[in-house]
Amino acid sequence: MPEVAAYAVDSPDGRFHPTTITRREPGPTDVFFEIRYAGICHSDIHTARGEWGRTDYPLVPGHEIAGVVMKVGSEVTKFQPGDRVGVGCFVYSCGECDPCQRGEEQFCTSRPGTVWTYGGRDWDGVPTAGGYSKGITVDQDYLMRVPETMALEHAAPLMCAGITTYNPLKRWGAGPGKRVGIVGLGGLGHMGVQFAAALGAETIVLSRTLAKRDDSLRLGATDHVSTQDADRMKQLRGSFDIILSTISDGIDLDKILGLLKAHGVLINVGLPENPTTFSIGTLTGQARILAGSNIGGIAETQQMLDFCAQHSLAPMIEVIGADRINEAYDNVVASKVRYRYVIDVATIG
Amino acid sequence: MPEVAAYAVDSPDGRFHPTTITRREPGPTDVFFEIRYAGICHSDIHTARGEWGRTDYPLVPGHEIAGVVMKVGSEVTKFQPGDRVGVGCFVYSCGECDPCQRGEEQFCTSRPGTVWTYGGRDWDGVPTAGGYSKGITVDQDYLMRVPETMALEHAAPLMCAGITTYNPLKRWGAGPGKRVGIVGLGGLGHMGVQFAAALGAETIVLSRTLAKRDDSLRLGATDHVSTQDADRMKQLRGSFDIILSTISDGIDLDKILGLLKAHGVLINVGLPENPTTFSIGTLTGQARILAGSNIGGIAETQQMLDFCAQHSLAPMIEVIGADRINEAYDNVVASKVRYRYVIDVATIG
Repeated sequence: MPEVAAYAVDSPDGRFHPTTITRREPGPTDVFFEIRYAGICHSDIHTARGEWGRTDYPLVPGHEIAGVVMKVGSEVTKFQPGDRVGVGCFVYSCGECDPCQRGEEQFCTSRPGTVWTYGGRDWDGVPTAGGYSKGITVDQDYLMRVPETMALEHAAPLMCAGITTYNPLKRWGAGPGKRVGIVGLGGLGHMGVQFAAALGAETIVLSRTLAKRDDSLRLGATDHVSTQDADRMKQLRGSFDIILSTISDGIDLDKILGLLKAHGVLINVGLPENPTTFSIGTLTGQARILAGSNIGGIAETQQMLDFCAQHSLAPMIEVIGADRINEAYDNVVASKVRYRYVIDVATIG
Repeated sequence: MPEVAAYAVDSPDGRFHPTTITRREPGPTDVFFEIRYAGICHSDIHTARGEWGRTDYPLVPGHEIAGVVMKVGSEVTKFQPGDRVGVGCFVYSCGECDPCQRGEEQFCTSRPGTVWTYGGRDWDGVPTAGGYSKGITVDQDYLMRVPETMALEHAAPLMCAGITTYNPLKRWGAGPGKRVGIVGLGGLGHMGVQFAAALGAETIVLSRTLAKRDDSLRLGATDHVSTQDADRMKQLRGSFDIILSTISDGIDLDKILGLLKAHGVLINVGLPENPTTFSIGTLTGQARILAGSNIGGIAETQQMLDFCAQHSLAPMIEVIGADRINEAYDNVVASKVRYRYVIDVATIG
């Protein structure tokens, strides 16, 4: 069984420290690959700090993973050693239920269902561990191929931040003739802007302040509006087809929903800790839609990577050593990162 | 200008009393028709009692109207005297904006926009008055034709309760292979059950109590479940494709949303007076959808009437004299009507 160096945290208020974990020996359909880069997602922080309730420690987070194949099982047909691959939020599912059959493995309805990359349990009950580590064993059907022209450090954040924003924009029809709003310019939002613009939509960033306005325009937005600018917000009422909210807390639903046309949709990809209060009537009168969205399936994640390669889209990242994970977490919570920390896994162990 | 007898209310806590109102002389594209029946919609009560904020008194409510054409303008091509017709929630719109062009006149974006049948103002600024009256003048493009086999007293409630439930069930794909829930068995819900079942969906009523269970089954539901039955509710988790909520207040969004599959939709057609609190995360994880819906356009309302005729669907009604309007309002608020009061307009004036 391969042993790999990793970084783990042991309690909600603990600090990340070096450790060693064991990966399973690749079975017939498994691939073992060396992890080169792992993005830091806000979900990692929520989980590491026990903010979502049920964290099993020690925890090795990381579901934005990119690396190079080292070893493949006897029945593996899709990959070979040397291939550049990525893994996102899940590493297994039944493959047979309705959602799996339609390519939405994240909604697997079998028991025990979708196996999350870290903080979960695989079908044998073994706790899963994520990308803050030097290697991982994954079934070939749950790997993406990183396009040739894409740097591995750019590929990593796409595995979650990329698919989380690409999926709902495609599903709800972002494209030419549509006005799309992106609420929040962070790790998710700065990908959402790029996707919406590349899909041909008129894209407007809605942010509390104008601090990131230049970045918004550079990423493809036609405008960047402060949600505190009452005049501009009034002008924009009833004008959006699609709004993607990437912020977790503090969204004023009534205000944002009011920006939508009839049948317009506000998609929320954040997971707020606290309940939200709003007026259902804001939906009713104009037949507006409030939707959730949760990453995407394997095939679509591959499609998203290829779309990025085709349109030269990439996350804006800051590569850090593993010894800076604790500091990075604080910066992410303080919105001080532009726009994604990526751990250089060579610095682990 | 035709004068017609009507019933009006003069203040939020006033009682309905006989009066006389003036209708406009039919212009070239107008139809004047004698109203025979007018349904009592819960919206009438909210408006009459000033619960939605901005009621102009005296108010003549009524937007579930059916009657017989008396007189047509020189350019009217669609109707002639003797035709049986109906009018719903609106009587005019621009006909040219995007929503009007796609047959959704209720979302007219021009100024002054959709003219509501009562409690609004027409494009000349004249206050509109509804169906609690003996006659009304309406542009021919805003009239529906009542199918031959349909009684006028059954047609009336369909103009609002019918289209309000038919539209979202069609839009969101109620049909064979889908499980549809109807929250609340009242004026709207009892039509929703019939539509969902006639469209071929497995239809389950979700109601606080089992009191109306027999009616649910008679109307086409395969089951009627108490939302207070924790065991049944748990069994049903994640199993619905579509849920239509017809209740205004007191919906437990988290509980009802939890019944939906991935991508399942909860459509709300009520207009609660108070804000609602829920966890957005209930939407996010399973990419669920919370949507509003607001009646339907003229063409679709006609389609709905024809669908009812084809499938022998009709509201369950209680026909009353106009002198019982005040009492009927109290009964509607107390959920004592099964399931729609319809005013016999012959009793007015």
